Order: sequence, then C-alpha cells, then structure tokens
Amino acid sequence: MTPPDFATARVDFSSGRSTPNAYLQACLERIATREPEIRAFVVLDAEAARRAAGESTARYRAGRPLSRIDGMPIALKDILETADFPTGFGSPIFAGRQGGRDSAVAYALRLAGAVIVGKTVTTEFAGAVPGPTRNPRDPRRTPGGSSSGSAAAVAAGMVPVAIGTQVGGSILRPASFCGVVGFKPSFGAINRGGSSDNFSQNCMGTLSATLADAWAVCHEIVQRVGGDPGFPAFAAGPEPAAPRRPDRLAVLRTAGWSAADPAAKAAFETFLAQLAAAGIALVDERSSRRVAALEVAIADASDVSREINDWEKLWPFAELDQREGERLSPELRTGIAAGRAMTPDHYHALLLRRDAMRTTLASLAGDFDACITLAAPGPAPLGLDFTGDPVFNHPASTLRCPAIALPLLAVEGLPLGIQLLGYPHQERNLSAIAGNLLAQAPPAG
Amino acid sequence: MTPPDFATARVDFSSGRSTPNAYLQACLERIATREPEIRAFVVLDAEAARRAAGESTARYRAGRPLSRIDGMPIALKDILETADFPTGFGSPIFAGRQGGRDSAVAYALRLAGAVIVGKTVTTEFAGAVPGPTRNPRDPRRTPGGSSSGSAAAVAAGMVPVAIGTQVGGSILRPASFCGVVGFKPSFGAINRGGSSDNFSQNCMGTLSATLADAWAVCHEIVQRVGGDPGFPAFAAGPEPAAPRRPDRLAVLRTAGWSAADPAAKAAFETFLAQLAAAGIALVDERSSRRVAALEVAIADASDVSREINDWEKLWPFAELDQREGERLSPELRTGIAAGRAMTPDHYHALLLRRDAMRTTLASLAGDFDACITLAAPGPAPLGLDFTGDPVFNHPASTLRCPAIALPLLAVEGLPLGIQLLGYPHQERNLSAIAGNLLAQAPPAG
Repeated sequence: MTPPDFATARVDFSSGRSTPNAYLQACLERIATREPEIRAFVVLDAEAARRAAGESTARYRAGRPLSRIDGMPIALKDILETADFPTGFGSPIFAGRQGGRDSAVAYALRLAGAVIVGKTVTTEFAGAVPGPTRNPRDPRRTPGGSSSGSAAAVAAGMVPVAIGTQVGGSILRPASFCGVVGFKPSFGAINRGGSSDNFSQNCMGTLSATLADAWAVCHEIVQRVGGDPGFPAFAAGPEPAAPRRPDRLAVLRTAGWSAADPAAKAAFETFLAQLAAAGIALVDERSSRRVAALEVAIADASDVSREINDWEKLWPFAELDQREGERLSPELRTGIAAGRAMTPDHYHALLLRRDAMRTTLASLAGDFDACITLAAPGPAPLGLDFTGDPVFNHPASTLRCPAIALPLLAVEGLPLGIQLLGYPHQERNLSAIAGNLLAQAPPAG
Repeated sequence: MTPPDFATARVDFSSGRSTPNAYLQACLERIATREPEIRAFVVLDAEAARRAAGESTARYRAGRPLSRIDGMPIALKDILETADFPTGFGSPIFAGRQGGRDSAVAYALRLAGAVIVGKTVTTEFAGAVPGPTRNPRDPRRTPGGSSSGSAAAVAAGMVPVAIGTQVGGSILRPASFCGVVGFKPSFGAINRGGSSDNFSQNCMGTLSATLADAWAVCHEIVQRVGGDPGFPAFAAGPEPAAPRRPDRLAVLRTAGWSAADPAAKAAFETFLAQLAAAGIALVDERSSRRVAALEVAIADASDVSREINDWEKLWPFAELDQREGERLSPELRTGIAAGRAMTPDHYHALLLRRDAMRTTLASLAGDFDACITLAAPGPAPLGLDFTGDPVFNHPASTLRCPAIALPLLAVEGLPLGIQLLGYPHQERNLSAIAGNLLAQAPPAG
C-alpha cells in the first residue's frame, strides 16, 4: 500500500540505478490496478506523463535535473487549472471545460520537471458534495473531502504526492482518513493563482506518503511562483528540519472532542502517554491559562469558518447561482443564501474574531513548541455520501497557521491522524517536531 | 464639460421630474459627440443600456428603486469581466474574449440597478502600454493610465462614474490629468474578484465627477459583494461625511517633488497658503519628526512597488509569456524577466519594507487628520505614447491606504489634482476633509 518514496528514488536517478521512466511506470501500474475501484482521478494522461518522464530521464542522464522534484509523478486536485487537462472544479457546470492555462502550481511544477499525471476528484467546488472516490484503506468508506482524489491517489500508492487545498478541513481530514501525510502550510505560503475560488482561508497544500516529499514539492513551487501575492512564501527549506524532540506541546481537545469516537479519544490519550514517557511535557487547558484561552478562542472555529465562507460565496458563487442555479447543489445554494442574508459589518466582526484566534495562538509561542490534537473525530466513516466531519480541522483553517496530519494512530485497523499545529510561517520548526513524532511512532496501519 | 451629478438627478427620478431614461439619453448624446475624438470606450452598447435604464425608470415609477445608484450610467475599466461584453484586458491576446461571467463589481452594480454602458480603455493589463484614449481637457495629451478610458469618460461628461483600478498610480494620476475625482479606497475595501490580475496592491476604485457619486457606488457595491475576501469592506457609509475642516494636515512632498514641474509646485504652495489662511495647521518634515519618518519610509515607494509587482508577475504573466510571449509588450516582458531574477526571500524583504511604511503612517494618526500632497508631478504631458509619471501615486499604493485626488489646481489652464491620503479603513474621515477642501476651493478649470 505504501507509495514510492521519491526522495530516495531521486538518488537512484542521479546514480543511474533507476530512471523517472521506471518510477512512472511503477506508478502507472499501480494506477491500472487500483484506479478502477478507487476512482481517484477525473482525468489521467499516461501518454503525456510518459513523454514528460522521458524528458526528465534525459535530464538526469545529462546530469542536469531541473530540481529535486524533476521526474516526480504528481496529481493535482481538479480545482487547479491546467493548460492541457480540462478543469471541472467538481461541478457539472464546468465538466470538461478547458481553461487553457496552467495555475500557478501547475506552471511551477512543470518548470521544476515534475510529471503531472492527471487531475484528482474534488467535491463540488471543494465544498461538501462528494465525488465517486473510495477510500483505499476500505473502499466502503469515504476518503474524506474535499481533496478526496488526492488523498486516495497517494494512499493507494499511485503517486508519491498530490496537491490539495483546504478552506475548512479539506487536506487534514482526507489525510487522516486515508492514512497519509497531510500538510497545510501557513495561509498564503503557496501561490493559489488559477484555483477555483478565493476564499480567505483557502490554502494550497499537499497529500503525500512522506514528509520529505511534501517539503520538496512546496519548496520547488515557491522558488518559481512564490506564495499568494502579498504573503511570504513557504520558507522552510528544501527538506524538513532534522527531527527534534519538542520540550512542551500544548494539547488541544477543541470543539471536536465531544464529537470524537471513544476509540479515537483512547488512541489519542495512549499516544500522549507515549510522548510523555519520551520526556515531552504535555500541557492542556487544565494546567495552562494560555492553552485555556486558546481553547476558548477556537471553540467556535466551525461557526466562524462557515459564516466567513458563506459571505465569501457572494462572489463568484452567487453570480454563478444567478446563471446556473439549477446545476449547483442544494448544499451550496443554502450557503449562498446565508451569505446574501449577512451584512458587511457582520463579516467584519467575524474577521476580527478570526484575528483574535490567531493572536491568541501567537501568545503561546514562548511556552510551547507546537499544539497537538486529533486530525479527525475518528476513522473514515462508512459510506460515500458524506466526506466526514471537519470539526478538528477548522481551528487550523481559521488560525491560518501551518498544520500537519501524521498517520500515527490506528483505530479498528483504520488509520487516524495526529494533528500538529504550528505558528504562522514557522513550518521549519513544525517539521522538526513532526519528524520526531514519526521517528518515535512509525506510521500505523 | 461637467458630467451630470447623479445624486441630484436621483431626487428628480423619485419625484417624477426626470427619469433614468432621460439621464441616460443625455449621457449617450454626450458620448455620440465626444467619443469619436476621445476614444474612451473599448465597447459600448447603447441598446442594452437603454433597456436597463427603461427597467430602472419603471422601478422609480413604482416607487421601488433598488438602491441609490439605480439608473446610474456607469462604465467599467476593461480589466473587469462582464457576462455580456468581451473583456480584453488591454491586450491583443484577449481582445474580444467573452469571459461569460460578471466580475464582483459588475454583478453588484447590476443588482443595484446601475446601467453598465460599456467597457473603458485600459493600458495593457493595467500596466504601462497605453491605448488610444485622449485627454478630454486637451486631446493632444494623455489621459493618464491605466484607468485611461474611465477617467476620460467621466471628464468628457459621458458618465457620472466609471470604475478604475490602481496597482501603482492608475486611479489617482488619470483623475489628476483629466480633472475629475479619483478615489482609491483602502486595500481590499471593494471586491476585485473577476478583474485580470491579483497584484497585492491592486485596488478597485472610482473616477467620478463628484465625491457623493463615488461614495454611493462604493457603498452599494460592497453591500452586495463586500470587499476582497479576508478584508473589511468599504464602511464609510452611503454618502460622504459632512465637510469638516481638518485641524492639522501632514504635508508630504515625497520622492515626487524633485520630478514636479515648477508651476505645479507653485500651485501646490499657493493652495497650502490658502488652507493655512483658513486656519488649518500644515506640518511637514521640517517641523515634525513623525512626518520626516514617513517621508523617509516612503522615499523608495516607487522602487518597492515596482519590485513587488515584478515578482507578482511570475503568475499569471510569466505563464502567459511562455504561451503568448510575442504578443506581450516588451515593457511587460522586462518586468517578467525581473521577477524571474528575484528570490522569495527578496520578495519577503520587500513586503516587510512595505509593512513598515504602513506602520509609520499609522503612527501619525494621533497628530494629523490626513496627509496632503500633489496627485501628479504636473498636468497631463503632451503625447499619447506615455501615460505620465506615477511617482506621486506610489506612496498611497504601497501604504495601501485610502487616497483621493481632487481636481482643485490648474496649471496653464490644465487640471492638476490635490491628493489626500488617509488612514486605512478611515475613508469616512477622509471624505469629511475632502468635502471641506472642495468647499473652500471649488474645482479648478
């Protein structure tokens, strides 16, 4: 089930022991085996991928790879435009639509020599309404959303990295459900130009088998197109920092705790005990006023997130609703209607509440290396009609801080993620801690 | 030359003394007379406008106008998408392209009942390369850029308000050159969704004959689509505040002063003397350390602005360059090349310098009601190949603060603007001061 580790493979490309052609071929074979059941892809072009891998192979032979992701097969959530593939945004309105340009991420990946194999299934406009993708760990279950196909493609070993986006819980939750690494950087850290929406929490990120491959992809993208205009780009380096045991972690239980499965809670507490035994101080709201203040600040993250997103639907979605209303889902139309009922002043108040969450997080920086919580209330639920509860993911989205979901827990044989939340633009520190936790407790399942 | 004052006309619509039909007819007659020489429009649809005005007339007759801009003829810079008109972004690559959707501003204006008469000429992608528009005050001269057609259409009395955008100096300068009111709100205050670029200084604003009409347009837009996602919307109310004499103004001369015409400097000093005589304290860098600090902070606003914009060309313009390079201007390609030569770290340093400018401005809030300077180094230069020097406009763009150009000066019979710069999101205070200056010195020329 494990996808190929690209950072290791790349060493073999340089030494001549392997080639991007061979690496791609392994991915395509995996896709051929698994895709009919998993349905991770909206569109897939093996021929174009083989051409790109061939060019990459030639570059390695000449000793001139373009970057540390030259030759990496990668899939893009179908919310990002590509010049070659159609971009459907998970909506029947746009199905098969050729945008004719590369999004910032697609453009940067091509410049870096990556091999874009196809577009992965997203929920409708990265919202609530699921596509057909199944969870590779158990095909009766949802892979999570909205980066459904990206998480499933990586979990099924089809590609080492896929690009996802998160507005509410769309990277961290599917990573947790599918048992892969989900990385949502600080807001604005990766240029989201040419993706379908401009929600103020929308953030580009990765689903990957390893942290190192995620890092390399983020690094190589921003060298070529930067972050969002006006924001500092991902600056955590081409590789994760060396693992470092954190001194103190703030344990957050968040509003999600009351929704969490008893087995998930138990797995989390067991994991915390393991960290404590390793000498890490774990502090929660019962023993720290500052952690308590953060718990209070983010207690309504789900409501704030939903209301902010509803107001921000006024454009482009209300405009689209006017022209194509019947082809939007009832769920999306309900959100648009809620946005129409709001006022600019109410939205401003929501922004101030969101700012306060971030300020409160910042006040912990002197005391804690990072925050830790669950990445989901439990393993992936049964069924494909519902992508699961994002309640554990809303805090990282409203905080607009970096967060990583690590596949470290297992509940009833299914994966469940540990979530680390860091301070804005401190991804490097967060990677050191993530590396430590991965070393202590190798991925489950 | 004066365009019709819509706020006054609206009273007549409600009382039945006039109608939006009649108001539009006056605009269309003005367009018929002036447009062949001025060339403010890329596309114009009198029939569609007449239909919209007819519907508005019916609403007033029924006593149910949709907003205080119901029936207002308005023109949009051709950098904003519209569902009906093509959107060319001032580039041959996109000439005649039908985007098929309304930008946030166009969508909001239609919901408010405004009558979109057409799209106005912009420079190439709102950059440096001019279109064919002439200055209505003297057709041998540039109208300024990049909101060339919007400024000219208002100055020629074709419409009471036109929408513009500013990244560097694209609202304030053409307003100054054409002798109209230019209003650039705080960054993010008006939703720019569906405009061609996403530069981090890009801001929607208005060119108008009166301050009241600009205010009404901004207010009605944000009631329907808000500001940019993540930013508070324009909140200065439906009408400008009552005029209020400021106690103290910070006089900025900026890097522009050394480029200013002697006659422009003299006109500015004469105007300041008039304000001083009216009892306003005028303080410059010679007598205030804080003003001196601001002068120092913004001294390189032009360089910071240019470099930030070059980096932000990496997407979408570098991607476009790859596909359509020959059809981009050499000026734009030079900027793209400069962006390619930069690093994310350098860009981050530029953002920090820009942030410092804004923080320095904020430190003046206790001492000064607003800042005052010229809106351009002199009147519109002769010739249509160069849209004029934006050096006086870069500070407001990098500060991302609200700024208003008021047509209060005249040099050799040509208009020249006074520029007021306010504190972010304090547009209401700024309107009170602008109203006071307009009352003291009615528009020149």
